[in-house]
Amino acid sequence: MNVEILAVTGIGEVVAGDDLAALIAAAGPALRDNDCVVVTQKVVSKAENRVAAIGGDGPEAIRERKRELIEGESARVLRRRGDLVIAETRHGFVCANAGVDLSNVAAGCAALLPVDSDRSARRIRDGLRALTGVEVAVVVSDTFGRPWRRGLTDVALGCAGIGAVVDLRGTADAGGRELTATEVAVADEIAAAAELVMGKARGVPAAVVRGLDEGWFRAGSVAAEIVRSPAEDLFR
Amino acid sequence: MNVEILAVTGIGEVVAGDDLAALIAAAGPALRDNDCVVVTQKVVSKAENRVAAIGGDGPEAIRERKRELIEGESARVLRRRGDLVIAETRHGFVCANAGVDLSNVAAGCAALLPVDSDRSARRIRDGLRALTGVEVAVVVSDTFGRPWRRGLTDVALGCAGIGAVVDLRGTADAGGRELTATEVAVADEIAAAAELVMGKARGVPAAVVRGLDEGWFRAGSVAAEIVRSPAEDLFR
Repeated sequence: MNVEILAVTGIGEVVAGDDLAALIAAAGPALRDNDCVVVTQKVVSKAENRVAAIGGDGPEAIRERKRELIEGESARVLRRRGDLVIAETRHGFVCANAGVDLSNVAAGCAALLPVDSDRSARRIRDGLRALTGVEVAVVVSDTFGRPWRRGLTDVALGCAGIGAVVDLRGTADAGGRELTATEVAVADEIAAAAELVMGKARGVPAAVVRGLDEGWFRAGSVAAEIVRSPAEDLFR
Repeated sequence: MNVEILAVTGIGEVVAGDDLAALIAAAGPALRDNDCVVVTQKVVSKAENRVAAIGGDGPEAIRERKRELIEGESARVLRRRGDLVIAETRHGFVCANAGVDLSNVAAGCAALLPVDSDRSARRIRDGLRALTGVEVAVVVSDTFGRPWRRGLTDVALGCAGIGAVVDLRGTADAGGRELTATEVAVADEIAAAAELVMGKARGVPAAVVRGLDEGWFRAGSVAAEIVRSPAEDLFR
């Protein structure tokens, strides 16, 4: 019944072209079937070279270049307040600055979200299988704000080998009555759980979540299961 | 560095007046200092008798009574679609049906959110200290939807003995640059992590999260730290 969250330490600085599966397999812990490996967007973006130069010509030039990057990453802007932009990305994620982020990247650079985080997750999963022989799931996580509640939480940008949303619709509850709406976004909950050990700025860009329900392991996709279309959204 | 999430099994059906601290202490696992005990809103509401009769006179009468309960729990309604109401509760939570929930309660009854979930958490924490001599934190969790992303996740309604939001603002990142916005809603992440073991309708209304950062343990409050006022919210 229990779940463990194990930090993957010692990966070090990730650069463009790095093989994340190899880095994770080498850093340990030893992986087992049905582990779920959570990898932060930041190192996925670095490994995939989704990093843009933002210049070093003073703060105003940097702000202007950042604005341009955000515009390029946005499908549409939902809200602006001062320098903060809440935008819908081309993937359908709604987040601050369309995911353009200057923290934890080299000076003069900004990280952008991966082009296809489900694909990034599949690639890491395939790499880990080839290297270690075990079948793990992979979640690519990022840190998002949300409306109505203060504070950031980690959510899933992509996944592979695990359902993003587990449908408990129609499962009888403990009293034998039917549950009508319990589609649980387990990929987001796994990302949040991993953040409890990864923290920020402590050089832990990955974690292993062990002990998840075996029924959740299947081909999965954040894009297909979690991203809500504007048409069905009550808040766009 | 690692975190464990332990299911609290064997609590059984909770009724009005039950002492949740005593039930949790008896069900185990043996608690340690700096554990965080997560308890679902449903059993807190039952123990605190926040359950309303909803009648058994046919589906239309039940729907009408449910509508009345939702209205009574709402400070204002943000959206309606069919039978679904997204409302701001008197506590400032934004959720479906203002927290009025017919699942996992006795037939003819609906559970309402606790009057003050921070206080509920403090009471359980005080009870566990008195019974076991250990200093634990407590989070009261519930299952909410959110805009933009499909699927439900567990979040914190109340907490005690742990910060709801941990402020990493200004902490240097791994590259020595300043992080500007990393206030992490750890109470919500703890609730989400606990849900990975509690699941739905499996009779596990509590979990123990062990191994959290010791720096997070302090008096905490979801109402004061996480609930965002409409004035500072971009989406109300």
